Amino acid sequence: MPHNLENTMSLLSRTPAALNALLRDLPETWTLRGEGDKTWTAFDVIGHLIHAERADWIPRARIILQHGDSQPFAPFDRLGHEREIRGKSLGELLDEFARVRSENLSELRALNLEPEDLDRPGRHPALGSVTLSQLLATWAAHDLTHLHQISRIMAYQYREAVGPFSAYLGVLHCNGHSS
Amino acid sequence: MPHNLENTMSLLSRTPAALNALLRDLPETWTLRGEGDKTWTAFDVIGHLIHAERADWIPRARIILQHGDSQPFAPFDRLGHEREIRGKSLGELLDEFARVRSENLSELRALNLEPEDLDRPGRHPALGSVTLSQLLATWAAHDLTHLHQISRIMAYQYREAVGPFSAYLGVLHCNGHSS
Repeated sequence: MPHNLENTMSLLSRTPAALNALLRDLPETWTLRGEGDKTWTAFDVIGHLIHAERADWIPRARIILQHGDSQPFAPFDRLGHEREIRGKSLGELLDEFARVRSENLSELRALNLEPEDLDRPGRHPALGSVTLSQLLATWAAHDLTHLHQISRIMAYQYREAVGPFSAYLGVLHCNGHSS
Repeated sequence: MPHNLENTMSLLSRTPAALNALLRDLPETWTLRGEGDKTWTAFDVIGHLIHAERADWIPRARIILQHGDSQPFAPFDRLGHEREIRGKSLGELLDEFARVRSENLSELRALNLEPEDLDRPGRHPALGSVTLSQLLATWAAHDLTHLHQISRIMAYQYREAVGPFSAYLGVLHCNGHSS
């Protein structure tokens, strides 16, 4: 099916409220524990989502619109969230994510993209040729990959508490799928 | 770590609002499509969560408290959601899930469980010996397994739209883990 920008924006506009409803004021067992040494917590993931709002989606869309595929995107810093989370509470991060997401959706609307704009080509530093449409669809799918990850990180905290029910809990049999 | 009932209830109390914030009024591309023939949609999953509220958690806790492991739980009907979703809108299902979850949390509180109650044994028709603690921890982990599933089902709708970015989107490399 073709990429529908309204569907993408509908999802993007809901993610901050969904994560806020899930995570705000939740006990730290759920939010500050990862899946082992040097793995991300739900708290880290919100920091990553904020960093991606600043560094990834709208900046890359602007590069495509201004330079097409003649200028590759700047590489994304996967440790960029470390600056975002330092000294912050989870509540502060959730507020910040909602704020930057809302600003970026306003920016996206202000671009007044026409259907033909979505076909414009860009250049990813590792993946090569991509389109504006693919970049914007990925913005939404990136929310979902991290919602998927957060639910897995949280379930990991109960991997022993559920005992034999583990057999029926698919999330406990997910090994993550980062590349 | 030992199972902490307050942590379980904190999560259980948030899931309906999180799913509501994510799904209500979202375009049907996201909510009424599955991952292929005879697979569940996000809409189906909400029906399943409602059915589990009626048939699974509190009824099974009562069996443990009244009969211990001398009476096995009734088997869970995995197609029980079909009665729940018939003729309903997604908004109606989200309202119903919030209502039955709230009622069940009130029932759980009214049980006034003491720490030693959590060790009480029950009998699962397929898994055998389980404890009340494991049943209640599974209630929370079950929310997470279905949040994990919903994010995967939704991401599936954009598996082509994201183009080469698929390589970086772990959720698109999750094959599900049902048993």
